[in-house]
Amino acid sequence: MRTQVGIVGAGPAGLLLSHLLHLRGVESVVIDVQERESIEQTIKAGILEQGTVDLLRQTGVGDRMMRDGFVHHGINLAFEGGLHRINLTELSGGRSVMVYAQHEVLIDLIAKRLGDGGDIRFGVTDTAVDGIDTDQPTIRFTHEGRQETLECDFVIGADGSRTMCRYLIPERRDFFRQYPFAWFGILAEAPPSSDELIYAHSERGFVLVSTRSPSVQRLYFQCDPETKVDDWSDDRIWAEFSARLGPSGATVTEGPIFKKDVLQFRSFVCEPMQYGRLFLAGDAAHTVPPTGAKGLNLAVGDVHVLDRALGAFYQSKDTGLLDSYTRTALRRVWRAQWFSFWMTSMLHRFSDASDFDLRRQIAELELVTSSPTAAKTLADNYTGLPLG
Amino acid sequence: MRTQVGIVGAGPAGLLLSHLLHLRGVESVVIDVQERESIEQTIKAGILEQGTVDLLRQTGVGDRMMRDGFVHHGINLAFEGGLHRINLTELSGGRSVMVYAQHEVLIDLIAKRLGDGGDIRFGVTDTAVDGIDTDQPTIRFTHEGRQETLECDFVIGADGSRTMCRYLIPERRDFFRQYPFAWFGILAEAPPSSDELIYAHSERGFVLVSTRSPSVQRLYFQCDPETKVDDWSDDRIWAEFSARLGPSGATVTEGPIFKKDVLQFRSFVCEPMQYGRLFLAGDAAHTVPPTGAKGLNLAVGDVHVLDRALGAFYQSKDTGLLDSYTRTALRRVWRAQWFSFWMTSMLHRFSDASDFDLRRQIAELELVTSSPTAAKTLADNYTGLPLG
Repeated sequence: MRTQVGIVGAGPAGLLLSHLLHLRGVESVVIDVQERESIEQTIKAGILEQGTVDLLRQTGVGDRMMRDGFVHHGINLAFEGGLHRINLTELSGGRSVMVYAQHEVLIDLIAKRLGDGGDIRFGVTDTAVDGIDTDQPTIRFTHEGRQETLECDFVIGADGSRTMCRYLIPERRDFFRQYPFAWFGILAEAPPSSDELIYAHSERGFVLVSTRSPSVQRLYFQCDPETKVDDWSDDRIWAEFSARLGPSGATVTEGPIFKKDVLQFRSFVCEPMQYGRLFLAGDAAHTVPPTGAKGLNLAVGDVHVLDRALGAFYQSKDTGLLDSYTRTALRRVWRAQWFSFWMTSMLHRFSDASDFDLRRQIAELELVTSSPTAAKTLADNYTGLPLG
Repeated sequence: MRTQVGIVGAGPAGLLLSHLLHLRGVESVVIDVQERESIEQTIKAGILEQGTVDLLRQTGVGDRMMRDGFVHHGINLAFEGGLHRINLTELSGGRSVMVYAQHEVLIDLIAKRLGDGGDIRFGVTDTAVDGIDTDQPTIRFTHEGRQETLECDFVIGADGSRTMCRYLIPERRDFFRQYPFAWFGILAEAPPSSDELIYAHSERGFVLVSTRSPSVQRLYFQCDPETKVDDWSDDRIWAEFSARLGPSGATVTEGPIFKKDVLQFRSFVCEPMQYGRLFLAGDAAHTVPPTGAKGLNLAVGDVHVLDRALGAFYQSKDTGLLDSYTRTALRRVWRAQWFSFWMTSMLHRFSDASDFDLRRQIAELELVTSSPTAAKTLADNYTGLPLG
């Protein structure tokens, strides 16, 4: 088997890159260890930046998103000083975000790739990448009982945070930050508590109020990383939300809770994001805490750069954009890391926080909700930098 | 002895309040444990916000400042990405700061008060404040060997961070944050290294390059709070500045070092700032780390509010502004605490910092030096909020 670009991982980065390359006439094959059903049914949140929405629409994979997604023109910040709306659209000069779950994006991309005759191999095993320091790397894998060897010009490591491609880069620097807290998440059958997301600060810790659908709410509260879901009855959970939202005047609509989980919190970046003919994209190269809603959008940013770089290579053998991929992509990645950390540190209670720190956080929230300049920094970064 | 407003402390807060009250015809007496010479000769840095400069000028104590002070229209941020100027004046809509040492402000205020017939008692001992929960509080003290009792309508606790007035407020909440670092400061005989201040980030920690006069530089580098000045030879000090400034391309001009000291770092706020007829102002109520250059300016903000509140009381017996003094003053105080913390956390190396944190700081510095919106937040807060 032979293709131009071999892509390890059928997540947002891998599938979108395959789609973009197809549009410019570059062939690719995508492989993934998961089955299609598993990929399409693993429910994940999604807040799409304006640039992500534009790219999906412009490249013909945005129809269902535009029909079923929810455009949000603002978010709310809640704290002791009340509930304040940040008008994202007005502050950012017309940009907004789309609430549309990540697995829905994947369903759309898979359907489009297969409809366009794309080659996606689900449920592969025994993947091995070789020869990335040559100009003919290979990806070996087993698919439907057969051993395959895929010869390609380039290998894209889009295999998520449990990546094996990352470890093929020698002399790599890993930048890492563990946070001393996690998020306790629930899914509850109840109508939305709020039309737009609420990010809430309180002495007891952070709360995020969001919505999965008109009848299902997705709510989170900051917790200790060691928290066990079985220790939290429904009543205790609702009491905790109430205690944390009380000082701001916000409330949640209660309903039967049908899922409880604990999300760990970490920041990670690997440098460089490339070696020879191997290029990393998305979570394989970097992860962000969920506070800034940037994970999916960073994957989109990476492959937008990679697509143009590979396009330049196939058009004119120019490797300039490929050579500078890491530098170009990391600018956006580190900005998002800063933004995610900023949102996290402004809103969460840190384990060593003194009363001084809580007041200082409230002073910052008052700044962001009263100064148009500070609010614009939030709005610009939340709705996302232009893809360039 | 009797006066309308008894002021404990002849620092910026106490002297300026006495001056402002005099202008509206309200009498005051200022006492201080220090002698005049000591107050006038204790050299302290001073970066005056636009509002502080305007107030001093408008009330007739700005002549020498306008002649000998240096107006700064910008500051520099230095980090791995280079040396970047923040144009304070352009970003803030015409505001700037004045570099004019705090003890020079005190010299001007003392001269003005004495010239106007003001009553300042230097070198007092055995100060005691009584009756603040009545409408006739007293300040007892010994001056030139004589015991005095000053009867007044109000007592102002402007007695600095070693305040005794603060402890007269019952049911007080103290908000406190100790930082895990200090500043090693030097005075060196050498011409300025830079026309404007340089705030520098590096893997080895923070550096501040400032100037005391055309022939004397004031330079600081972040150090451990336990650092002993005797362990640092001149050569070692200059090598440290060079190592920290190197990555940004900034340099310092070397010269004989004639003073070395270590400044501790802390944030403090007490709430409320008043009780009965006692009102705290300046460092007696709050201290900020020096990174934001806000200490003196917060004292000015406090007494600006107090002056108007006392004016309203004497004009019409209206206590509304006095009653809301804490709330009004604290808005500005907490904003400045946020700003000082922000500047500190963006620029200093924390003891638990990982390489991730250093890169994240650089990402934030790149944001602030490339986004006019983020830069404006810095400029607006550095040049200071309007006094209102």
